Amino acid sequence: MESILSERILSTPPSFVRSILKTAADPKIISFAGGLPNPVSFPQKELSESMTRITKTFSDKVFQYSITPGIPELRDTIAKRYNKKFGLNLTEENVIITTGSQQALDLIAKVLLDKGDNVILEKPSYLGAIQVFSQYQPKFHMVELTENGLDIEQLKEALKNKTKLMYAIPEFQNPTGLTYSEQNRKEILETIKDENLVLVEDDPYGELRFTGKHLPYIGAGKFKNSIVLGSFSKVVTPGMRTGYIISENKELLKHISISKEASDLHTNVFAQYLIWDYLTHNDFDAHIQTIRELYKKQAAAMLNAMDKYFPSSVKYTRPDGGMFLWVTLPEGVSALKLFPKALEKCVAFVPGDPFYINQKDVNTLRLNYTNADCETIEEGIKRLGELLKGI
Amino acid sequence: MESILSERILSTPPSFVRSILKTAADPKIISFAGGLPNPVSFPQKELSESMTRITKTFSDKVFQYSITPGIPELRDTIAKRYNKKFGLNLTEENVIITTGSQQALDLIAKVLLDKGDNVILEKPSYLGAIQVFSQYQPKFHMVELTENGLDIEQLKEALKNKTKLMYAIPEFQNPTGLTYSEQNRKEILETIKDENLVLVEDDPYGELRFTGKHLPYIGAGKFKNSIVLGSFSKVVTPGMRTGYIISENKELLKHISISKEASDLHTNVFAQYLIWDYLTHNDFDAHIQTIRELYKKQAAAMLNAMDKYFPSSVKYTRPDGGMFLWVTLPEGVSALKLFPKALEKCVAFVPGDPFYINQKDVNTLRLNYTNADCETIEEGIKRLGELLKGI
Repeated sequence: MESILSERILSTPPSFVRSILKTAADPKIISFAGGLPNPVSFPQKELSESMTRITKTFSDKVFQYSITPGIPELRDTIAKRYNKKFGLNLTEENVIITTGSQQALDLIAKVLLDKGDNVILEKPSYLGAIQVFSQYQPKFHMVELTENGLDIEQLKEALKNKTKLMYAIPEFQNPTGLTYSEQNRKEILETIKDENLVLVEDDPYGELRFTGKHLPYIGAGKFKNSIVLGSFSKVVTPGMRTGYIISENKELLKHISISKEASDLHTNVFAQYLIWDYLTHNDFDAHIQTIRELYKKQAAAMLNAMDKYFPSSVKYTRPDGGMFLWVTLPEGVSALKLFPKALEKCVAFVPGDPFYINQKDVNTLRLNYTNADCETIEEGIKRLGELLKGI
Repeated sequence: MESILSERILSTPPSFVRSILKTAADPKIISFAGGLPNPVSFPQKELSESMTRITKTFSDKVFQYSITPGIPELRDTIAKRYNKKFGLNLTEENVIITTGSQQALDLIAKVLLDKGDNVILEKPSYLGAIQVFSQYQPKFHMVELTENGLDIEQLKEALKNKTKLMYAIPEFQNPTGLTYSEQNRKEILETIKDENLVLVEDDPYGELRFTGKHLPYIGAGKFKNSIVLGSFSKVVTPGMRTGYIISENKELLKHISISKEASDLHTNVFAQYLIWDYLTHNDFDAHIQTIRELYKKQAAAMLNAMDKYFPSSVKYTRPDGGMFLWVTLPEGVSALKLFPKALEKCVAFVPGDPFYINQKDVNTLRLNYTNADCETIEEGIKRLGELLKGI
C-alpha cells in the first residue's frame, strides 16, 4: 500500500485534532483540549425558524446545485458587514464562501504552493494550518510570537527566503490567545509591503473580543495580495461548515474559485441560505454579545483558577477574546509527557508539539475555556494544578 | 500575480462546468448542458419533516463540530444498503462521508498522486475528474470506451505504465451514458487484478437505472484496492453536498480521512443527520422509483425527438439509466464551433472537448435530459436538429 501513496500524505504530520475530538467525546473527561464553541453560540430556535422560511421561500433552490463562489445574498451580506466594521470597500465579488475556514486554507495552499516553496507561520501556529499546508510540501519558516505580535527582526530574516505565503492569526491567536498590537501590525505591513507574497489573516475569533478595543487588519484595504478568512463556526454554527475568503485581489479569487470547483463544486447551499436568512432576520450583534459575555466569564474562571492552583513557575497568557490560552511550563518539562497523567485525572489539554514544525516534547500547552461551565473549569484547573505542583 | 501561483493551478484546464451552470441559469435557454437533477428528486416535504425531527432529537449535536469520517448512523445505513444490494460485507468503518463525490475525487488524488504519476481514465471521461486530477499533475492515459465498456487491449497497453489510479464510471457513464457489460467488467478485473493500483468506480447514477438488469461492481468485494464512490446528489439533494467513499481497504481509508481532516475537518453534520433521518423514516426505494420513471420518460422523449429531427449522419447512445447521452457528429464537425450557434437558438449542450485530455474541436457532445419536461426536450432537440441539418 505505502508504495502507491503520495509523498505529500507520507509527509503529513499525524493528526492531533482527531485524537483531541475523540478525547473530548468521553463525558468523564474535563476537556480543555478541543476547540468546540459553547452550544449557547448556536441560535437554535432562530435557525429552525430560518429553515422553515427558506424552504418555503426558495423551495427547490436550497436543495439544487449552485454556483462555486457561493450565493450572492450571503456574499453581499458579508461584504457589507466588513465594510461597516473595517471601513473596507468590498462587494460580493470580493467574497468566496468556503466549506469552513479549513477549506479556505486548503484552497489557498493549492493555488499558491509548489513543493519546496517558502511559507511563513507564527511560532507557534494553528495545527490545522500546519497540517493542511504540509500536504503541499512547502518549507516552513516560523516567526516567534511575542506579547505584542510577530518578532519583526525574525520576520525580516524569514523574508530573505523568497516567500509565497504568510499565514497569521493576529486576533486571539490559536493556540496562544495573543493579539498583535496596532503598532506591530503597522510594522508587519511596512516589512512586507513590497514583497510578492500573499498575506492570509485568519480571523475566526475576531467577533469574540471581550476586553480591549477593536483593531484593524494588517493587510486588508492596504496590501494588494491580502486575504482575510472568516467563519460562522464560532458565532452561528460549526456543524454547517460555512466560512469565507475575502480579498481585494480578484485575480487571486478567480484561481481560488477554480480550485474550489475542482475540490467540492460549491459549499452546501442550504447552509448558505440558512445563515444568510438568520443574519437578515435577527439581531446578530446581540447574539454575539451573549457569546462574548459567556466567554469572558469562562476565561476569567480559568485564569482565576490558574492564579489560585498553578505553581508560580508556570506562565500563561491572558487573552482579550477568542477561545484559547497558552501555558508555558518550566524549561525542560514536556507537556506531551504530562498529557497521559492529566488524562488519569480526567483532564485533557493539547500539548504544544503539533503547533510547531518538527519539535518534540515542548514545554507549552493549549487550554480551551469555551466548552465547560465555570465550576467544571475550576475543577479541571485544580486537578491540573495538583499535577503541575509535582513536576 | 502569476509568478506566485502554483504549477498545478497554472496547469488546470479552464472550467467548462462554471460556464455551463451560468448558461443553465438563464431561463430563456433550453439547457441540455448542466447535470442538474430534476427537482422532483428532492423529497422536500420529507426533508422538512426530518429537519424538525433532528433539531428536536439531537439539539445542538447537529450544529456542533463532529468527527472527520462522518456520523456513524449515516455510514452504517450506507454500509447496510450496499451489503443488501451488492452482497458486500461492509460496516460503517468502510465508509467515509465526503462533501459531495467531487471532494472524494480530490481526496483520492491527494492521497495517491505525485507529479508525473500515471492515471488511467475512460476516453471520454467526466470533466470534473479531469479537472481535479489535473491539479495533482499526473500523466493521463485514456482508454477508449466502447458500447460494451473499456477497450481491454488499450487498457493492457495503458497498464504498461506503472499506474497508481484507475478511474471509471461503469454505470451510465458521464458523459456517454454507456454501461459496461458484465463480461467487460470481468475482463477488466482479470486484467488489473495483480496490479498495485487503486480502482475508483464512481457510481453517482447507479440507482437511476430505468432499463435492463442491475450489474455487480468491477472491483468491490473482489479487488483489494477498490473504491466505490456514491452520492445523495442525484437521489435526495445535491445542494447538501453529501457523498461517500466505500472501500474494504481500511489503510487507504485512514489516509483519506487524514487528508479530509486537513481539507475541511468534516462534512456538514446537519446534512448528514438530515439525510440519515430521511432514509430512516421514508420509503427511499419508492422515491427512487419515481425519479427512475420520470427520467425514463425524459430520455425517451429526447431519443424519440432525435430519431425524428436529427440527420442520419449524427449518431447517439441509448442509455439504460443515468442523466446523459452522447452525440457523435460527422467526422470533422466541431461541437465547440456549433455551441454558439445553438445558443443563438437558445439551446445549450456541452461540447465534447473538456471530456478529453488536450483535444480541441472534437465531433462529440453531451446532452442532459433530466432537467426539462418532455415538451421542452422535444422543442430543444428540434432546434438542434435544424442546426445539424445545416452542417
